[in-house]
Amino acid sequence: MTAGVCPASFLDRRLGEARGRLAEKGLDGLLVTHPPNVFYLTSFRGSAGVVLLTRNGLCLITDARYATVAKGLVARFGPKVGLTFVEVESTYEETICAVLRASGLARVGIETAHMTLAHFEWLEHALAGSGVTLCRTTGLVERSRVVKDPYELATLREGGRRISGVMAETLSGLGTGRTEREVAADIDRAICGAGFDGPAFESIVAGGPNTALPHSRPGGRRLEAGDLVMLDFGGVYDGYCLDMTRVASLGRADPDAVTWHDAVREAHSAACAAVLPGVPPGVVDAAARTVLERRGLGEGFVHGTGHGLGVEVHEAPRLGRPRLATGSGDPVETGEAVEVVGDIPLEPGMVFTVEPGVYLLGRGGVRLEDDLVVTETGCELLTSLSLDLVVI
Amino acid sequence: MTAGVCPASFLDRRLGEARGRLAEKGLDGLLVTHPPNVFYLTSFRGSAGVVLLTRNGLCLITDARYATVAKGLVARFGPKVGLTFVEVESTYEETICAVLRASGLARVGIETAHMTLAHFEWLEHALAGSGVTLCRTTGLVERSRVVKDPYELATLREGGRRISGVMAETLSGLGTGRTEREVAADIDRAICGAGFDGPAFESIVAGGPNTALPHSRPGGRRLEAGDLVMLDFGGVYDGYCLDMTRVASLGRADPDAVTWHDAVREAHSAACAAVLPGVPPGVVDAAARTVLERRGLGEGFVHGTGHGLGVEVHEAPRLGRPRLATGSGDPVETGEAVEVVGDIPLEPGMVFTVEPGVYLLGRGGVRLEDDLVVTETGCELLTSLSLDLVVI
Repeated sequence: MTAGVCPASFLDRRLGEARGRLAEKGLDGLLVTHPPNVFYLTSFRGSAGVVLLTRNGLCLITDARYATVAKGLVARFGPKVGLTFVEVESTYEETICAVLRASGLARVGIETAHMTLAHFEWLEHALAGSGVTLCRTTGLVERSRVVKDPYELATLREGGRRISGVMAETLSGLGTGRTEREVAADIDRAICGAGFDGPAFESIVAGGPNTALPHSRPGGRRLEAGDLVMLDFGGVYDGYCLDMTRVASLGRADPDAVTWHDAVREAHSAACAAVLPGVPPGVVDAAARTVLERRGLGEGFVHGTGHGLGVEVHEAPRLGRPRLATGSGDPVETGEAVEVVGDIPLEPGMVFTVEPGVYLLGRGGVRLEDDLVVTETGCELLTSLSLDLVVI
Repeated sequence: MTAGVCPASFLDRRLGEARGRLAEKGLDGLLVTHPPNVFYLTSFRGSAGVVLLTRNGLCLITDARYATVAKGLVARFGPKVGLTFVEVESTYEETICAVLRASGLARVGIETAHMTLAHFEWLEHALAGSGVTLCRTTGLVERSRVVKDPYELATLREGGRRISGVMAETLSGLGTGRTEREVAADIDRAICGAGFDGPAFESIVAGGPNTALPHSRPGGRRLEAGDLVMLDFGGVYDGYCLDMTRVASLGRADPDAVTWHDAVREAHSAACAAVLPGVPPGVVDAAARTVLERRGLGEGFVHGTGHGLGVEVHEAPRLGRPRLATGSGDPVETGEAVEVVGDIPLEPGMVFTVEPGVYLLGRGGVRLEDDLVVTETGCELLTSLSLDLVVI
């Protein structure tokens, strides 16, 4: 397997699975508008592009800016998976309409969790009288994405190895006097230097009282002696997201911090130990939560234990309670975006974070996060670095 | 005005405008789910949060991760603009439903360009019998956002000054031997070092033949003598996006490159000269396009002349022909997202890019991009740096 290029045989298998779902639903085609799903089925990574998947065809619709890239994919994958390319003439909407009208398809699925109401109503109106009926679907492609294939696992393993290296290097270089924002900029640079496409999300560097905010934005506060420092960052490696968190103490750690760290570490271990095929994801969350509750820190654990990783930094499965919207994008529908797959039991090949944390306002917080893949007998960590509280 | 904090008086004015539009449409409230619109009305920058704007109220709904931030905003803005906060108990969907049911509102607008079909249908179903009717709206908040207020202009001016500095510094440090990706990582670091929240999009560093791709991703290719190098990057400054492109030649420039650069520079000037209140945005595009067509390079200009800048890196107005989806997010609806405001004539205070370019496959390309604000008598450049072809 060449790094960075998904072999055609894997694309072919993914397309076969998606077509199986089309057949099950009595659909002739699926209009794939969610960029991560487009990438998954075609390897296309432009910022704009739509796929029409049919029982025996695969058509990528994109605009002139990406024509060269699209033609390259057709040359590479066309013969093997039947990929074709249609260039947008005037607007995406009109081109999609023209392609659908010319297709002779009767029942075409749309991705309700990723198509806006405005766009759906425009398309439905424009297709009136064409013989094409738009049919609501959710999760047809996401259901495949939740279990990673060997190409994806190899990519995530390599990404996990590299992000662990960036974390080790960052921890060893930490010191007082620099601002959170400066440290975050160094991290972003190290992520790029380690061969990632870029950071998977805005890197978090939180010092002192800011560690009490689960999603602190790095600011102008300088790290000082005695600070607890939380580092949470990730990278996109060949299109796949990694995500990792560690905590350091600048100087001898406060006894409270040691207590929190110890509890979170135990919760992290309990969560990893609960991972097994057939187990509902909520059981993994409960394992971490029980540890923190028993230690009197349950109130401080304000988020879920983990989230799936893959083409998106937040995807299925969700390991949590309560259900909270996560990630960016439409904040309301994110519950939908993550749960489009539903709370299915764990299967070998699922990849997700385990990231228990405690946050005590005005005092501080600790989170420890690793990425893992479910195996036949438990789990394999993709990221790996000591869980000790790093004292600098 | 304190940098980074929008004064309450400006929020108040924005809220007043949005309420005027509610009244016009006969709406009692608006459920604001598009994060940039939420930020614009409240200064809230979390990754998940929804606002219910009513004739005399403003309620921010977010989850426990952002409770501290939300309470801070209530303390700062509550007395002045009536901001309140509701914490999500179990899910966003259920909390929104509960807030709407308790509100006594009859007609509540939803943002059709930013709400997925799945979420809309869930909400509509859940509200059956509640007395609340969801009403389709588009662009109620975006229509205000297209004309920047003095706080926003001051922020964008400062951001423009800083991004110009990063560009100057990057150009002066360019040389052979480093990969596109390494240069891009340095740029991202410089952006953070210059006080930006982070890059506004994935920085583009394209060398040699890669300059022929308008949206090239920085890769492992090393810059070499004789290369044309295109740098296109931006930063988010206190929540507002800047975007800039320049081209350099590593060593004496190829005569073709000089010809392209000269033509693009003339197109850039023509576009800036066409900016005037009352003019349709398409006229600015036509001004640039005519120059390139006259020079026989019209075919190579495959995108629009510019796009609005503000809380989003692609927003209204759109200066283009043909209509192409831009930016990330749902690629189909982006036409909608940018054009939710419609092709209204230019007004003082509108901010957008001017970025003509030519791309010749297998040979190379040139793009020159600056950001400007429309004034009473023409335009003021927010970014500023020589448009000469930099020869290194």
